[in-house]
Amino acid sequence: MANDQDPPRRRFLKAGVAAGAALGAGSVAHAATKAQFKQPVDPMTVVEPFFGEHQAGIVTPQQSHTYVAALDLTTDKRDDVINLLKQWTDAAARMSRGETAKPLPTDDKSAPDSGDILGVGAAGLTVTFGFGPGMFEHEGKDRYGIAKHRPAALVDLPRFNGDQLLPQKTGGDILIQACANDAQVAFHAVRQLARMGYGMVAMRWGQAGFLSGPRGQTPRNLMGFKDGTNNPSTAQPALMNQFVWADAPDAPWMNGGTYTVVRRIRITIEHWDQMERGFQEQVMGREKYSGAPIGKKNEFDALDLDAADKDGNPVIPDNSHVRLSNQATNKGAQILRRSYSYNDGTDFYIERWPPWRQETEYDAGLIFIAHQSDPRTGFIPINDRLAKFDMMNQFTTHVGSGVFACPPGARPGSYIGAGLFEA
Amino acid sequence: MANDQDPPRRRFLKAGVAAGAALGAGSVAHAATKAQFKQPVDPMTVVEPFFGEHQAGIVTPQQSHTYVAALDLTTDKRDDVINLLKQWTDAAARMSRGETAKPLPTDDKSAPDSGDILGVGAAGLTVTFGFGPGMFEHEGKDRYGIAKHRPAALVDLPRFNGDQLLPQKTGGDILIQACANDAQVAFHAVRQLARMGYGMVAMRWGQAGFLSGPRGQTPRNLMGFKDGTNNPSTAQPALMNQFVWADAPDAPWMNGGTYTVVRRIRITIEHWDQMERGFQEQVMGREKYSGAPIGKKNEFDALDLDAADKDGNPVIPDNSHVRLSNQATNKGAQILRRSYSYNDGTDFYIERWPPWRQETEYDAGLIFIAHQSDPRTGFIPINDRLAKFDMMNQFTTHVGSGVFACPPGARPGSYIGAGLFEA
Ligand code: HEM
Ligand code: HEM
Repeated sequence: MANDQDPPRRRFLKAGVAAGAALGAGSVAHAATKAQFKQPVDPMTVVEPFFGEHQAGIVTPQQSHTYVAALDLTTDKRDDVINLLKQWTDAAARMSRGETAKPLPTDDKSAPDSGDILGVGAAGLTVTFGFGPGMFEHEGKDRYGIAKHRPAALVDLPRFNGDQLLPQKTGGDILIQACANDAQVAFHAVRQLARMGYGMVAMRWGQAGFLSGPRGQTPRNLMGFKDGTNNPSTAQPALMNQFVWADAPDAPWMNGGTYTVVRRIRITIEHWDQMERGFQEQVMGREKYSGAPIGKKNEFDALDLDAADKDGNPVIPDNSHVRLSNQATNKGAQILRRSYSYNDGTDFYIERWPPWRQETEYDAGLIFIAHQSDPRTGFIPINDRLAKFDMMNQFTTHVGSGVFACPPGARPGSYIGAGLFEA
Repeated sequence: MANDQDPPRRRFLKAGVAAGAALGAGSVAHAATKAQFKQPVDPMTVVEPFFGEHQAGIVTPQQSHTYVAALDLTTDKRDDVINLLKQWTDAAARMSRGETAKPLPTDDKSAPDSGDILGVGAAGLTVTFGFGPGMFEHEGKDRYGIAKHRPAALVDLPRFNGDQLLPQKTGGDILIQACANDAQVAFHAVRQLARMGYGMVAMRWGQAGFLSGPRGQTPRNLMGFKDGTNNPSTAQPALMNQFVWADAPDAPWMNGGTYTVVRRIRITIEHWDQMERGFQEQVMGREKYSGAPIGKKNEFDALDLDAADKDGNPVIPDNSHVRLSNQATNKGAQILRRSYSYNDGTDFYIERWPPWRQETEYDAGLIFIAHQSDPRTGFIPINDRLAKFDMMNQFTTHVGSGVFACPPGARPGSYIGAGLFEA
């Protein structure tokens, strides 16, 4: 199907030889060894500060694991929510320092911590909280007297082409994203926080995710491509202010916060694996092994969307993922992607355009997470184009979704969301 | 319900104070830091030998992640199976060295490796193969002319009390267990092998698992208890010969192999978390924080099943997990447990005794893996007692199951299972 977009055969051959040489047997392990030796810090002992201007886990370099959960508020009492947020702030700060959620009792009472990571270390844990639309309005009701503070940017996401959202993996009044360099540390955080909310919140969905590879390199997702290359640089505050941190005048309590979109995207990796590498690269618009834009050499070479081959065809195909999602074709918009792969065992079908079910094996894919100052200029228009035109859609199905307002960070002594409830 | 088994209150108080001191805030992170400093080897660069007398991944110290899969054979041709085992042997040996499953082509052909862990390193990968009953007999047919070599020890597991096995998580003709210090490396191995079997095998179930904590310490499972303490020592070949390695005369091709039982055991961790620590310890028969047998001080202190309190009640309760599973109450039998925790998101019910459904939140628990020289003296009688009497059953439900004959290791140039097909 990509026939008329095939680049000259010669380029593939050349690139292939180079990749074969660089990535053959021995050198793969060798490259990893060298990268690891540059890594002086034990990832299990890293401590990320919980308090600060922004919440942790947004521009924090990605840890290797996540557990993302959405909870529904079941209480009607404003004070319950405030008290819970205070307790959560305290517990999240403790756990970020490698402590138990609350001090352990010295008697045989039911302990306020499951104890399953005692002796493990903070492992770089970050805990990020977000508020979904249901926090502000639930079945037409303003349960907590905060409907007037709902930011215009916190829109309900529209339905996108091809969406096959499952209710049990979609929505939620509150987001808790825990990231750590250890799977159990990440899950542990959500487990304790959910338990503290007993009677006030109920788990709606939870999702574990992981990344691979030596830190400091761009990790590869389950499609085998480096994922995260062309993110706006978190090292440039100006870019973060422009694209990530909220500062709209209608909701000043969100200044320094961000809007987070989560999508659970299943990938039929068995079908993808059958595709020629050249085709995979046409779909992405990037070279698989180097991560460079097609036609370029190095991962971080600039994307040249105007480049054409000798027949005048675009080097980066019209319906390739990076062309459609690049800021040049999206009115300058950028989002900060901080996604993880997920892998929940086997499940042999995916619903597609009814009545078509696609056969597959793994329930695996991407737990896509994107932060932005406003989804109306960020995720929504970008995904609208992707959902319609992206060649990748043959292999991907969005089965879960959520949108959340992640408030700014808390100062010690205050709590996450204070600005909203004390506005 | 554990009232009449409550040990004197004083012991709890004392133990509690000690635990509080040892495990409070700062010291938790501190303990981890020290343990980590003793760890000189980067877990991402470890290489475990694939070839050898025994298969890797059985007595290998546990890596931090696993992906366990069971596949069904869909071919009727004996040569298909032999060729597949040869290809798998080669690919597994390559991947264990940190290489791609097969050499990457230098043209743009569909690559024989998904490429998603290029640059990552071997990460201690082990790949272990096993043969289920269906390999020897399928719907009454001896598809590959090997029925006569089926070991008597490879029995179909009986139904146990309380079993709620799901067909889509049970059985399988072939086991592939991949373990590594990286989630993606483990999954990558199974993914490539499954793909190589296209048209000859079909995935039946797959399950990701993880462990936590600094290496060299016994990891805690999701119930918060150290898990693996009282395993027979893999450092003692005599114990391994007695309890783990097969050597029955009816199936000499299995000598140096082992029989592996896999059970997917869901745990209602939310209910467990509500229990008093003292009750949890009565259920297990061990102290939660230290891991010591109740009444003892240190994790590796010997279990004294005869110890009684001043009222003559057993210190280690009659229906506690460790009493019921200890070799003293199982005719001397031991098994080598090598389990992982699993965490597949949310699922709000577990079927129990019909029509009773237990409410829960997480689809999380233990992917229980046990190796033994003969399941008829190992897993089966032990689990029979546990299924009937274990206090832990209130919190656990077996939802998946498999039993496999894992042949001995292969010599370079030969292949896994050669002994069976060339017997
Ligand atoms: C399974 C689903 C997806 C996969 C596997 C995937 C993978 C990738 C890869 C490999 C790249 C190129 C490297 C990079 O710059 O990070 C990329 C770029 C990008 N993706 Fe995705 N993506 C997925 C879904 C999405 C979705 C749903 C969106 C947003 C609506 C999105 C937005 C972007 C953007 C903005 C870029 C950067 C483009 C550029 O400026 O060069 N992606 N993606
Ligand atoms: C969710 C399910 C299970 C959990 C959480 C669990 C947990 C534990 C824990 C914490 C211990 C004590 C520490 C140790 O010696 O490793 C233990 C011991 C043991 N468990 Fe389990 N277990 C589970 C299921 C099973 C099953 C199904 C079997 C076998 C049929 C089993 C067999 C054993 C044995 C043989 C011991 C050693 C007892 C001794 O000699 O001291 N366990 N288990």
